[in-house]
Amino acid sequence: MDYGKKALTAHREWNGKIETVAKSPVKDRDALSVAYTPGVAEPCRAIAENQAEAYAYTMKANTVAVVSDGSAVLGLGNIGPYAAMPVMEGKCVLFKEFGGVNAVPICLDTQDTEEIIRTVKYIAPAFGGINLEDISAPRCFEIEERLNALLDIPVFHDDQHGTAIVVLAGIINALKVTGKEMKNCKVVVNGAGSAGIAIARLLLTYGFSHVIMCDKEGIIGADYPNLNWMQQKMTEVTNPDDAHGTLADALKGADIFVGVSAPNIVSPEMVSSMNKDAILFAMANPVPEIMPDAAKAAGAKVVGTGRSDFPNQINNVVAFPGIFKGALEGRASKITEDMKLAAAKAIAGLVSEKDLNENHIMPEAFDPRVAKAVSDAVKAHIEEREQNG
Amino acid sequence: MDYGKKALTAHREWNGKIETVAKSPVKDRDALSVAYTPGVAEPCRAIAENQAEAYAYTMKANTVAVVSDGSAVLGLGNIGPYAAMPVMEGKCVLFKEFGGVNAVPICLDTQDTEEIIRTVKYIAPAFGGINLEDISAPRCFEIEERLNALLDIPVFHDDQHGTAIVVLAGIINALKVTGKEMKNCKVVVNGAGSAGIAIARLLLTYGFSHVIMCDKEGIIGADYPNLNWMQQKMTEVTNPDDAHGTLADALKGADIFVGVSAPNIVSPEMVSSMNKDAILFAMANPVPEIMPDAAKAAGAKVVGTGRSDFPNQINNVVAFPGIFKGALEGRASKITEDMKLAAAKAIAGLVSEKDLNENHIMPEAFDPRVAKAVSDAVKAHIEEREQNG
Repeated sequence: MDYGKKALTAHREWNGKIETVAKSPVKDRDALSVAYTPGVAEPCRAIAENQAEAYAYTMKANTVAVVSDGSAVLGLGNIGPYAAMPVMEGKCVLFKEFGGVNAVPICLDTQDTEEIIRTVKYIAPAFGGINLEDISAPRCFEIEERLNALLDIPVFHDDQHGTAIVVLAGIINALKVTGKEMKNCKVVVNGAGSAGIAIARLLLTYGFSHVIMCDKEGIIGADYPNLNWMQQKMTEVTNPDDAHGTLADALKGADIFVGVSAPNIVSPEMVSSMNKDAILFAMANPVPEIMPDAAKAAGAKVVGTGRSDFPNQINNVVAFPGIFKGALEGRASKITEDMKLAAAKAIAGLVSEKDLNENHIMPEAFDPRVAKAVSDAVKAHIEEREQNG
Repeated sequence: MDYGKKALTAHREWNGKIETVAKSPVKDRDALSVAYTPGVAEPCRAIAENQAEAYAYTMKANTVAVVSDGSAVLGLGNIGPYAAMPVMEGKCVLFKEFGGVNAVPICLDTQDTEEIIRTVKYIAPAFGGINLEDISAPRCFEIEERLNALLDIPVFHDDQHGTAIVVLAGIINALKVTGKEMKNCKVVVNGAGSAGIAIARLLLTYGFSHVIMCDKEGIIGADYPNLNWMQQKMTEVTNPDDAHGTLADALKGADIFVGVSAPNIVSPEMVSSMNKDAILFAMANPVPEIMPDAAKAAGAKVVGTGRSDFPNQINNVVAFPGIFKGALEGRASKITEDMKLAAAKAIAGLVSEKDLNENHIMPEAFDPRVAKAVSDAVKAHIEEREQNG
């Protein structure tokens, strides 16, 4: 189906994919006097006395801002804040449809790091969380870190952490299918942008010890040209054997390949050079790093992609709606590494042992259990943490 | 009825008065591929090629931001952005319920003029208009003027212009009821904040020539103590006879009193000192400058207040939803003085000659004709202006 053409027509008809709706209609003077003046002064006073009451009386309890500067939108690149809007509205639709979370698109007419940080800080009072989206690396790392330090609501860059969480979920199940043990696995992550770096970091947090990152010039080590500050930082925790060479060199004897890079850059020969029962997540979109049939023919056991027309779709939509749902319901002030791990385990756990096989390592995006399972896992962790002080 | 207590309970139940809703549900993979990737890339590309297409493909066509810094909220004063939220959410409810316009509350965690201007400029791409709300004077004047110059979407401070428009609408009809002629009328506006100044300005634009402004120290003239820059500017166009004295002095021989000031500051003697068939809009809330029965007993012919339990309620809700509806549908880049006058005339015109009397000068807030009449008047003016070049 030509989704592009269909999308143009549909978007023109919708003229905006989301709308704001009053939870309770205002049909007469009494209703107006409760929802607006004079009655509304009472909840205002209650919040003025105790700011935490904003969660009881306003939409802050269940609303996130989806914030982008349009600098790295899908595969389209730096198309700016106006052209980024259809994606951000789409993300808001998914928040509501999959997680029951209200979401407002905020597309910023600046790409200056300081201005973005300041603007998000200023608009925060209405929102219970900030979902950063499609902001280019390495600015996205600083923007997220500094906003998390500044604000008392969760700030979450989905391109980084949502992707990392679903990849980890898939790897947890792929390990079960292949019988591989984490401690013996060599992992190669190709693509050292926001997603690749977040994937490598979360895999290390989960317990993988041998992770190699690659980018256009091959294996990333201390002597790789023009590393940004975050890539530089990654050289301290990845590539433990100080390997040098190309992606092909990195893949020799590897167990797991995770690609967030470019079409067709992994050859069947490279797959054959990996360890037996290799796991490949080839997530370049729409054309993966290697097509699943070619990877399988070359010896891979489990292959995932970003696409819905192959088995094992690695799709953020199983993560972010439930993560924010849980964070909001549990009033988390941050989304911690432990919460991300809990979310990944919950997603993996939705595929029963009976159903688990090399062509079925991920739950369906439309499986209605997903958001609740992720949300419950995130919330349980918040409660646990608070009980432990 | 105790609206305050009822409002507390209702706000706790609602937990946010507005929600975001997908216009079209995403129930399967095909729907997801149209509303989100891969289909969504096409409307993104179309907007990247021509920014004006944002109005065809995104919510910008029919969505305003309701922006406040919480510095002058209702009668509550400077309660800050968190406590202002129930009012801003309420305003968003009214935008949708009365005008069919989507609205998002944005409460800013800064009260610095420069930071507010910058933040609103940066968040503008998603929105077709900016409704400023409850920002204290004189900062509100500069913020609105500079944002209107910076942005290509309408910026409208409702506390100023919405109030001025409904007051003018009421005065147009009160003149008919009393048989007074504008050119002979002396008008006294008491309260030189955002609403009072905007009222005086719009009355002058409409054609009144004798307007006197008063504030706590009496008649505002060049020697009034501590005038801000906007009040100073108003001395150039008001008080043509260079009168001095108190509000009581100003009211002697006046035809129209407009109060946006404080309870009970107009005495029956002051009303008796006004010209025959005086018109009083006593809009201090909830207790007016003088109660309607007292004003009538002292000789007033037409009395309006801000309250729904007396005749002639002067209520912004008959203005702002229709004004933005018209501005958005007509793609106005500004809300001009002429559009405000057209809106006021349209509101006044909704009371038929047959129904018009001293106790019925305003249309009902819930009259379903109101928003469309105002919107049509605003749009007709946009089209006229564009035809005239």
